[in-house]
Amino acid sequence: MIGIFDSGIGGMTVARAIEQLLPDHPLIYFGDIARTPYGPKSPETIINYSIRNTEFLLEKGAKLIIIACNSASSVATETLRQRFQVPIIEVISPAVKKAIKISKSGRIGIIGTKATVKSNVYRDKIQKREPDFEVFSMACPLLVPLVEEGWLNKRETKMIIRRYLHPLKNKQIDTLVLGCTHYPLLTDLIQARIGKKVQLIDSSIETAHYAKEYLENHPQLVPQEADASHTYYTSDSTETARKVAKRIFNRPMELIVA
Amino acid sequence: MIGIFDSGIGGMTVARAIEQLLPDHPLIYFGDIARTPYGPKSPETIINYSIRNTEFLLEKGAKLIIIACNSASSVATETLRQRFQVPIIEVISPAVKKAIKISKSGRIGIIGTKATVKSNVYRDKIQKREPDFEVFSMACPLLVPLVEEGWLNKRETKMIIRRYLHPLKNKQIDTLVLGCTHYPLLTDLIQARIGKKVQLIDSSIETAHYAKEYLENHPQLVPQEADASHTYYTSDSTETARKVAKRIFNRPMELIVA
Repeated sequence: MIGIFDSGIGGMTVARAIEQLLPDHPLIYFGDIARTPYGPKSPETIINYSIRNTEFLLEKGAKLIIIACNSASSVATETLRQRFQVPIIEVISPAVKKAIKISKSGRIGIIGTKATVKSNVYRDKIQKREPDFEVFSMACPLLVPLVEEGWLNKRETKMIIRRYLHPLKNKQIDTLVLGCTHYPLLTDLIQARIGKKVQLIDSSIETAHYAKEYLENHPQLVPQEADASHTYYTSDSTETARKVAKRIFNRPMELIVA
Repeated sequence: MIGIFDSGIGGMTVARAIEQLLPDHPLIYFGDIARTPYGPKSPETIINYSIRNTEFLLEKGAKLIIIACNSASSVATETLRQRFQVPIIEVISPAVKKAIKISKSGRIGIIGTKATVKSNVYRDKIQKREPDFEVFSMACPLLVPLVEEGWLNKRETKMIIRRYLHPLKNKQIDTLVLGCTHYPLLTDLIQARIGKKVQLIDSSIETAHYAKEYLENHPQLVPQEADASHTYYTSDSTETARKVAKRIFNRPMELIVA
């Protein structure tokens, strides 16, 4: 069983991609919406929450953990790998791999939460493989609350995206990583603002592809019989969470409070 | 000792008012920024956090608790009063008292978080005393993240306030309660949008006055000797929290991680 956790509902974009790529693999999701958002919080706090979330998924039978949150991936991956025996997949490396593959100019933009940008993990991972690449990062802390509110096409959201992307506009980037699992819900607005020539990378989709490949290479993690059970847990129950979940999956979602 | 808690730093507007009115009274503050914000979360979750925060303040020696958070005041006050022996002061009633006192038209607006507005506690408390008063409420969930980001005078903030206040504009209110301890940081923008004829009520200031009066009536809660120790604890440490705290108090603030 694949266990996926996120600070809230943004990571459901990863779960959705996993459901599509691996429809016969059981999946369990935990969204920590009682403590959401993680992005503005300290690494210590994010690590504590990530440990607790992983323990929950392991108790429920997960054999593989996906950290479907860029903030937690940025600061908690090493701790989780040291602490737990199961494979831990994070959302950064798959997006980095894709960015390096498609960028021609070697100039890559990253947008994410404060925790993600401050950790410099995208820049470090890109430059470890391609030391000559230049990476330009911008923290966009208000985009998560705007998505959580469902303000996906409001004028104010466009203006705020405009303001955040402005410093990246004259950096001649040809690739922009959506380094937060909430941002795929704003793809159109971000693409319109950054320009058609810049290719967007959706870390959710890249992570799902990576997980699929990983399971093909580790068949012992795959159940012998098809089992399409997908269970979604959250640490709190709110109407907004149900609404955004429904929007992401395009179906009514049962969220079980754990 | 007065114990004050909030979901984060917004409640420091209450602490600041208490410091000014009761400079010789010891004060201890707890801001739960590891779990902030409370406003979008469920009553059950907010109640659990409020119990934990109160226990922390009592362990530190608090003899009187102020819930410096409208969301927690709205949903957790009764539980805290049943569970703990010390007096519990919330931020709603003082603002209600003032609103009833100054409103001439009997038409009162309330802005707050989702939790506060959904609880209907302002409307219920006003109409319990003045059944003929009309109360118009509007949840403004994005104002807390905007304040936490320090976007206090940005064009986008003005536009979002404009959008939130629009439905209140034609209700002929003469009084508007800032039903969230973050909102006093946006007083000028809110006043400009709602119009000069509408009187704003700052629940922070009203609560400080109420606490002062309460202590005058309960001298056994007042220390025999002046003790101006003011200690600020938080459940997480971030740069943004320190910045906003400094802005609220107009001095550098030491925030101790508890």
